[in-house]
Amino acid sequence: MRKGSVYLNDIPLTDARAHWQAALEKHGLYSALPGETVELTNACGRVTANPICARSSAPHYHAAAMDGYAVRAVDTTTATETDPATLTVPKQAKYVDTGDAMPEWANAVIPIENVQSEGNPATSIQFYHASSPWQHVRAMGEDMVATELILPANHRLRPVDIGAIAAGGHAQVAVRICARVAVIPTGTELVPAGSNVKPGQIIEYNSLMLAAQVEQWGAHPTRCDIVPDRKADILAALRSAAETHDLILLNAGSSRGSEDYSADAIDELGTVLVHGIAVRPGHPVILGLLDPIPNSQRTAPIPIIGVPGYPVSAALTGEILVRPLLARWHGLADDTPLSMKATLARKVLSHTGDDEYMRVAVGKVGDNVVATPLSRGAGVITSLVRADGIVRIPRFSEGYPAGGKVNVDLYRHPDQIERSIVAIGSHDLTLDLLAQHLAAKGQGFRLVSANVGSLSGLIALRRGECHLAGCHLLDADTGEYNGSYVQQYLPDVPVSLITLVSREQGFIVARGNPKGITTIKDITQPDVLFINRQRGAGTRILLDYHLQESGLKPENVSGYEREEYTHLTVAAAVASGAADVGLGIRAATEALDLDFIPLASERYDLAIPEEHVDSQLLRPLLDLLHDPDFRHDVSALPGYSIEGMGCVR
Amino acid sequence: MRKGSVYLNDIPLTDARAHWQAALEKHGLYSALPGETVELTNACGRVTANPICARSSAPHYHAAAMDGYAVRAVDTTTATETDPATLTVPKQAKYVDTGDAMPEWANAVIPIENVQSEGNPATSIQFYHASSPWQHVRAMGEDMVATELILPANHRLRPVDIGAIAAGGHAQVAVRICARVAVIPTGTELVPAGSNVKPGQIIEYNSLMLAAQVEQWGAHPTRCDIVPDRKADILAALRSAAETHDLILLNAGSSRGSEDYSADAIDELGTVLVHGIAVRPGHPVILGLLDPIPNSQRTAPIPIIGVPGYPVSAALTGEILVRPLLARWHGLADDTPLSMKATLARKVLSHTGDDEYMRVAVGKVGDNVVATPLSRGAGVITSLVRADGIVRIPRFSEGYPAGGKVNVDLYRHPDQIERSIVAIGSHDLTLDLLAQHLAAKGQGFRLVSANVGSLSGLIALRRGECHLAGCHLLDADTGEYNGSYVQQYLPDVPVSLITLVSREQGFIVARGNPKGITTIKDITQPDVLFINRQRGAGTRILLDYHLQESGLKPENVSGYEREEYTHLTVAAAVASGAADVGLGIRAATEALDLDFIPLASERYDLAIPEEHVDSQLLRPLLDLLHDPDFRHDVSALPGYSIEGMGCVR
Repeated sequence: MRKGSVYLNDIPLTDARAHWQAALEKHGLYSALPGETVELTNACGRVTANPICARSSAPHYHAAAMDGYAVRAVDTTTATETDPATLTVPKQAKYVDTGDAMPEWANAVIPIENVQSEGNPATSIQFYHASSPWQHVRAMGEDMVATELILPANHRLRPVDIGAIAAGGHAQVAVRICARVAVIPTGTELVPAGSNVKPGQIIEYNSLMLAAQVEQWGAHPTRCDIVPDRKADILAALRSAAETHDLILLNAGSSRGSEDYSADAIDELGTVLVHGIAVRPGHPVILGLLDPIPNSQRTAPIPIIGVPGYPVSAALTGEILVRPLLARWHGLADDTPLSMKATLARKVLSHTGDDEYMRVAVGKVGDNVVATPLSRGAGVITSLVRADGIVRIPRFSEGYPAGGKVNVDLYRHPDQIERSIVAIGSHDLTLDLLAQHLAAKGQGFRLVSANVGSLSGLIALRRGECHLAGCHLLDADTGEYNGSYVQQYLPDVPVSLITLVSREQGFIVARGNPKGITTIKDITQPDVLFINRQRGAGTRILLDYHLQESGLKPENVSGYEREEYTHLTVAAAVASGAADVGLGIRAATEALDLDFIPLASERYDLAIPEEHVDSQLLRPLLDLLHDPDFRHDVSALPGYSIEGMGCVR
Repeated sequence: MRKGSVYLNDIPLTDARAHWQAALEKHGLYSALPGETVELTNACGRVTANPICARSSAPHYHAAAMDGYAVRAVDTTTATETDPATLTVPKQAKYVDTGDAMPEWANAVIPIENVQSEGNPATSIQFYHASSPWQHVRAMGEDMVATELILPANHRLRPVDIGAIAAGGHAQVAVRICARVAVIPTGTELVPAGSNVKPGQIIEYNSLMLAAQVEQWGAHPTRCDIVPDRKADILAALRSAAETHDLILLNAGSSRGSEDYSADAIDELGTVLVHGIAVRPGHPVILGLLDPIPNSQRTAPIPIIGVPGYPVSAALTGEILVRPLLARWHGLADDTPLSMKATLARKVLSHTGDDEYMRVAVGKVGDNVVATPLSRGAGVITSLVRADGIVRIPRFSEGYPAGGKVNVDLYRHPDQIERSIVAIGSHDLTLDLLAQHLAAKGQGFRLVSANVGSLSGLIALRRGECHLAGCHLLDADTGEYNGSYVQQYLPDVPVSLITLVSREQGFIVARGNPKGITTIKDITQPDVLFINRQRGAGTRILLDYHLQESGLKPENVSGYEREEYTHLTVAAAVASGAADVGLGIRAATEALDLDFIPLASERYDLAIPEEHVDSQLLRPLLDLLHDPDFRHDVSALPGYSIEGMGCVR
């Protein structure tokens, strides 16, 4: 038990927040920061610290609103459409440009285009329309009157606000100071981004991510150097950061392992308020307060958050705990994210006792908004990059059934969701190229792919979860590709099969082919460890077809049961020595400097329901199949041929 | 006719855009800008210039996912819940921390908590559960495989993207260069923000606003010095800006007045493509191309936009023409604004031939989303500050009827709209104080007021356009305030009357009371010019009551027909000498250094339908009526008393 600490174990998020907030409030740390005066040129995006009232009126004088002649309205009343009136210049009528001050005696402007050019405009003017008082005059204070409130406190300044404040006579404005946040990465195994890493070393990028978050939320981050897992070093880093920061994010070491010093260090320099929050991903979060450093200017404690080490946990800790605190300090309400109702593509079980923040991809297929759960692993940062939003699964709920309605807190503008083309099915590098070319057009259309294999793609298509499915399914009876599978899996849906590409499949082996694989038979050698693709993948069907053709059995293939989901992960397994051989496409071997033993050429088609083929959404993508630049880039991929590209089967 | 220019007069916006785009495309100026390499620390918010692929896999080795013992799964199969298995350390089982590289021979981790502490862990471990292959191991490439696409080009980088790029082995990233935009303010009458202005001088703030817009849209603005209305000076400023910028915004002088040199200057240095667009506010927009400056590095023409001088026109020109071009250059699709369906509070006539961008305030009253048109004046910048969104009225449409459904392109998050309390009715300074105190709470609630007078406020309340109406309506028969009017105007709606404040009304006169006003009779003197409030205003009803009491007639009051909408504008009229006297509240006189002759004290109530009184939305506002700080601030207003504040009538 630590000294004086309220030491709690994996408490619910709401309790953790309340406990933390109460402790901050006690020390006056849960209110808006003070103001500082800045020039209007630097004020956009900052938050007003005080109400802003007009120092002068705008306009600050009665101003002509048109080019023309300033007159007394009462002198113009005799003018009619048939009988003009005449006024002498400059005594009864004085020329004014738009914005000029009105003479004191005048209260209307006759626009220049309404003045007859007859007569001598130097001495008199003629006109056919009477003026009403204050016509074509911008009265003093029309926009704002001196002392009037222009903007209240706690308002984030936009460009038009900057204009209005200047119009009210100010050149400067009082805005809330930006919180200073120290981000301290700890870990002996960490190396900076861009390093050439050795096994056991980890690229430190959480501090980049956390600092970018902090900056995005209007605060000033300081990224500290990596601190090794030594308690004395961590204590020194904390003491140094506490002197000049309003908040410290101590990244990792927040768990209870043998090299996790965060809680001890915080306890030594202050108080651990919360250690462990029942939230997924996230769990080992620490909330604490460091005592003020003696002889430093700061007399209040310094809030500190021990941020978990897994990157997804770190990013979500930022969103769940750092953002609301910074909003509070900057005088803003924490933004409610935009949200959208969606249908869940797959069943999701809850983790009893934990609030879970589940990443999902969201696509609009026809009228149906579908949310597809992404990897739940806390280490998979690409799952956050790919996520269109978050579904919160409350603790002690039972999760959600497939087809259930969920609320997605969006990471993207709903309009981007509307312009997302969702592909679920077999993985092919050409899909990545399609995504790149589509994005390069700059029209906002995106191709979002999930790699689940050819058959699962067709099933997703049947369920209305995607716009298209990439597949390369060999029919062992006919030797034909895809057609019979589409008929079998989507009997009631009119589907177009459009060829994307022809490609070589073959054996992926280490450079120099050390096990001497040349035929299908060689993968049944006892010293050869195979790495397979998942059930339903076209590549696996191709393997089974060739095994059968050669009279071989799966149980003769060592490693047949070990499944990967993409060509690249198969290649990666071979590259790392975890397997000797796998079946896949040539391009995957070139990328990882492996060798390739060709087995067969196959057709890779896009299955697209006819309702989507002619849609506005898919048009830019299908146009690319006939685009010379795209075709050129595909041809340049090893093992690929554009023969048949764009043909409708 | 200008040399070689396609000189067009007020053409439709779509035509203007198409013409401009075609001209830009011809010179290769309508495509994304090239890339530059920046450190990841500075990349957040920038836009990727190329696809980014992983340089290394993440993890780049098979990594332990738990603290525990690395083992061969095949060695663990004998373990059962009743009969543990034993493995020798370090030959069959090696201790690993989370993140450590797995030994080459191992393919699973037994978590430390599943290992029995019996026996000597230095030489052997015991456990009761068999491991499956790859259990608790993060396989190489689980997150990403080397060469895999992390992000396509034309993607705006978020914090998690920065993390993923670093995870893929990069420390830098290629992003689109930011367009350089020169903002040149012109006008002899202009003075910089913060100057002490004389009549005829105008505070130059359009350049502040345009520069802030440009920066918000990801480009680098240069605010140039104010250039007087002399063609030679304007030409010099343009030549200088053209050497180092991708776009020039020449602010004002874009019309066809005697001192409008923009079109001539652009014509002299290049080509005017469009002069005048049929859009309101906006009209005198110029689109052009300056020829490359000889001996400068730039060989392509320089796009230039002549931006109209009225501030609302300038800001909308930015949104309509500058933002889409910058988005294009930065490789982004122009963001579609969030929009919301709303019911129009008032009838709106269209300006035939012009596309109009009408500013509206938006509030959610019960289930009804109401859009109230704001000032349509191009000079009223506060109308843009107050606007929650824009309703586009297409040219040649007939406008919209009151109660019509319109689509509002929002300037605010819909959540802010949901948290807006809409007050329509009489103006009182205490409402501004309420707005300030509400905003200062930092919970995101806003008070949005429209000043239309007491009676119009009650009518708006009846129509369901607001949550509350401020009123001070004297019943001449009973001498009572508000009650009888509420019964008359809202007979079917249960309404609570809650007193906000008691305040003095009296005559607002110039300092020293030069016309010697002391009683109601004095305002009928022939040399006294009165300024009135609009029909339905409580103050006007009070005036009429006192005139009648004293046997005086409106026609005896010179200026009776001239109407202002707020106390402050009445005071401003007196301060500017446009009137000698008006009726209003004492606070308005103090603000503008005027004198005040008391006439009567009156009660100012908030009329609130009972359905809103107890709503979550209004609670924070009604709580303020009992808040000591708020009451203190109201008491400090001259002529105000908090007697009765918060009482329900």
